[in-house]
Amino acid sequence: MESKKFILQEKDIPTAWYNVMAEMPVKPRPMLNPATKKPLTPEDLYPLFSEEVSRQEFNDTDKWIEIPEEVRDMYRIWRPTPLVRARGLENALDTPAHIYFKNESVSPVGSHKLNSAIPQAYYCKKQGVTNITTETGAGQWGAALSLAAKHFGLELAVYMVKVSYHQKPYRRSIMQTYGAEVIASPSMSTKAGRKIITDHPNYQGSLGTAISEAVELAMSTPNCKYTLGSVLNHVALHQTVIGLEAEKQMEMAGEYPDIVIGCFGGGSNFSGISFPFLRHNFSGERSTRFIAAEPASCPKLTRGVLQYDFGDEAGYTPLIPMYTLGHDFSPANIHAGGLRYHGAGAVVSQLRENGLIEAVDIPQLETFAAATLFAQAEGIIPAPESSHAIATAIREAKKAKESGESKVILFNLSGHGLIDMAAYDQYICGDLQNYEIPESEIEANVSKLEKLL
Amino acid sequence: MESKKFILQEKDIPTAWYNVMAEMPVKPRPMLNPATKKPLTPEDLYPLFSEEVSRQEFNDTDKWIEIPEEVRDMYRIWRPTPLVRARGLENALDTPAHIYFKNESVSPVGSHKLNSAIPQAYYCKKQGVTNITTETGAGQWGAALSLAAKHFGLELAVYMVKVSYHQKPYRRSIMQTYGAEVIASPSMSTKAGRKIITDHPNYQGSLGTAISEAVELAMSTPNCKYTLGSVLNHVALHQTVIGLEAEKQMEMAGEYPDIVIGCFGGGSNFSGISFPFLRHNFSGERSTRFIAAEPASCPKLTRGVLQYDFGDEAGYTPLIPMYTLGHDFSPANIHAGGLRYHGAGAVVSQLRENGLIEAVDIPQLETFAAATLFAQAEGIIPAPESSHAIATAIREAKKAKESGESKVILFNLSGHGLIDMAAYDQYICGDLQNYEIPESEIEANVSKLEKLL
Repeated sequence: MESKKFILQEKDIPTAWYNVMAEMPVKPRPMLNPATKKPLTPEDLYPLFSEEVSRQEFNDTDKWIEIPEEVRDMYRIWRPTPLVRARGLENALDTPAHIYFKNESVSPVGSHKLNSAIPQAYYCKKQGVTNITTETGAGQWGAALSLAAKHFGLELAVYMVKVSYHQKPYRRSIMQTYGAEVIASPSMSTKAGRKIITDHPNYQGSLGTAISEAVELAMSTPNCKYTLGSVLNHVALHQTVIGLEAEKQMEMAGEYPDIVIGCFGGGSNFSGISFPFLRHNFSGERSTRFIAAEPASCPKLTRGVLQYDFGDEAGYTPLIPMYTLGHDFSPANIHAGGLRYHGAGAVVSQLRENGLIEAVDIPQLETFAAATLFAQAEGIIPAPESSHAIATAIREAKKAKESGESKVILFNLSGHGLIDMAAYDQYICGDLQNYEIPESEIEANVSKLEKLL
Repeated sequence: MESKKFILQEKDIPTAWYNVMAEMPVKPRPMLNPATKKPLTPEDLYPLFSEEVSRQEFNDTDKWIEIPEEVRDMYRIWRPTPLVRARGLENALDTPAHIYFKNESVSPVGSHKLNSAIPQAYYCKKQGVTNITTETGAGQWGAALSLAAKHFGLELAVYMVKVSYHQKPYRRSIMQTYGAEVIASPSMSTKAGRKIITDHPNYQGSLGTAISEAVELAMSTPNCKYTLGSVLNHVALHQTVIGLEAEKQMEMAGEYPDIVIGCFGGGSNFSGISFPFLRHNFSGERSTRFIAAEPASCPKLTRGVLQYDFGDEAGYTPLIPMYTLGHDFSPANIHAGGLRYHGAGAVVSQLRENGLIEAVDIPQLETFAAATLFAQAEGIIPAPESSHAIATAIREAKKAKESGESKVILFNLSGHGLIDMAAYDQYICGDLQNYEIPESEIEANVSKLEKLL
């Protein structure tokens, strides 16, 4: 375990986010108004989101977008984060590959989610908003937004996916300790929640449903905006601080990644670690591989279709061009709650269609085996979500061993798993399982999408 | 929340521990053999501990003791740790005081305990030991030793205080994920455990009992040593990396602490943050105040007596000169499991007797109020143990506000509380209480001590 850290100074915190849309060879298709089927404008989003992130959502011209000083001030609590050469893991695998990870788990809430929670709360506050809503899966995003809301003096209501509300009570308590209100979703507090509870009384919730509830509450509450922790372009934008720092740190290490890996739910941490490196592929300077690691039980990038679909279950959001399993796809109760989402963001979907990124899907048991090996070799207990990236890095390191190539692998450790120990407990006891999704189920969901257009 | 971090580089990790015993104006009384009442020698401890820590335990001549390179290698996983100017907390308190905290919660196991777990495991391994045992309260020490044992290839059995085993199942799972065996104490696996279960069937355990069980197992297992996470001189020695780093960081901040605060169970983190600064009091150069913050329900330094006592409940250990509530004092089930110990280490006890350090005792509800304020102001959810230090820092900051003095306060954030969210949950729900210890109970326990000599 002679792992080596590469440490930046506070002055190295990026001053601008990297906007990948400005440089994509093929821009993503526009979001559509579901009623008129017309492309949306930033103004169409103003009722739902802060004006600034609405504009960021459509900005495909400015390569760099300045990070407000108030946001950087709060980033300073934990940023820059370390980059680590994982020699302990390399030794355990006896691989010639060099494995690096960017450690986003060191944030006070334990994940990368704070990178976007801060600007989203800040822009709301700046605009005079008093209340915000959101959804959360495993609770990583909800915890991050709770802290950011408290800092900027906003009231926050969080709809937390019911299965995680019960599986991960500690993360609910974290949000409450920061001062947020937390509601298990589906709930009786919204029309969308009541409908799904009525139709499926035992439904344990999904991110899609929780988004519907949070959107509905925001739209029906005065001076209230909705915020989203993944999927959208502005979230990916904010997360690029991860890759921008990692780029400097790889330079300190004197290496450049052959492969960059992030786990994949809606795209926020994968985009954050990947896009800054991807720009050197655009310029032809590099030919790095980018791998999105998704759960085998929620395989939109590997087994879904690129189609216009709703971002939520009830159909409140605009139509988004996404790789999707259909917005009423009901994901299995895996512990990687943050990856239980039916679709991929528009930018990642476009990059995938153009062959600029790859995707793999990993069964749950493989992710926990990888997580345990990583914990013992590097000391850090990873989040179940991040363990998908670790499992993928291990697969690539084993391939490097077979081929004898000394590949440089970089993955994003998006969060720690200290709140997920009940899941590890089940794994240790042999109580966890893999989930197979029959092709017929995907086809049935996806075939409904055509009528949306 | 414009808190400022002071970040050191890996080269700033100390190369030697500071041995306070070499400079104390009055050395601590010697440990005694309970049968012969004669002072112990290092050799007397060899059956129980590794030879190197046995020698360190008695070393009162060498001011600096070199840190082995193998230990520094593993320190590099997370050290140096940040020092933070807690401007968020200062603002919330509207105090002229400058509040700093050393953030030991960033270690992979979430606390300072790894600082001593690593050398203890290393010295055992170096000597050819194959198995080790220990006790743990809240599980912080047990988790740290589990990781260190795995790293050096040692088998480990941990006796975990029963109340924490049930209150904090996640920390048990962390130890198991690192590969350790965890037994709830009191257990039927040892004579000491069987006796106390028979005498008190519902007893929820204490550190004193768990130590007895771990010592008994070590003594009856071939090639097995015992390790302890607090109380003893060598543990305090290893923890001085905290204060040595903090000293450099206060220099970066251009200030020197008027008050240094650590929470107090057996003394490990309090000693670690204090001793390096205390040496400048010895030299007359400074007159810093040092405050040990203990729970009102386990008040050995504020309400106990300085007496020879056993370190464990069953009386297996040497007699230690300690401020104590008596080794069969049964602490209330507060959530700060790491502070539920009847005695204080010999060095701290001596310093206290000589008026070189102070102590305060804090009721449980005050610690959770302080913890919640800190979490909202600084983002980090503190361990219930560390919250005693925070509450004390807040008391001192309020005094500074009343007197209008700009005091510089430094406290050690010994760990985070992410595994303790069930405790926060109870606090939020109003289910926590304070515990008063009647003077008669302390007198009854303490009066039995005289017959030990």
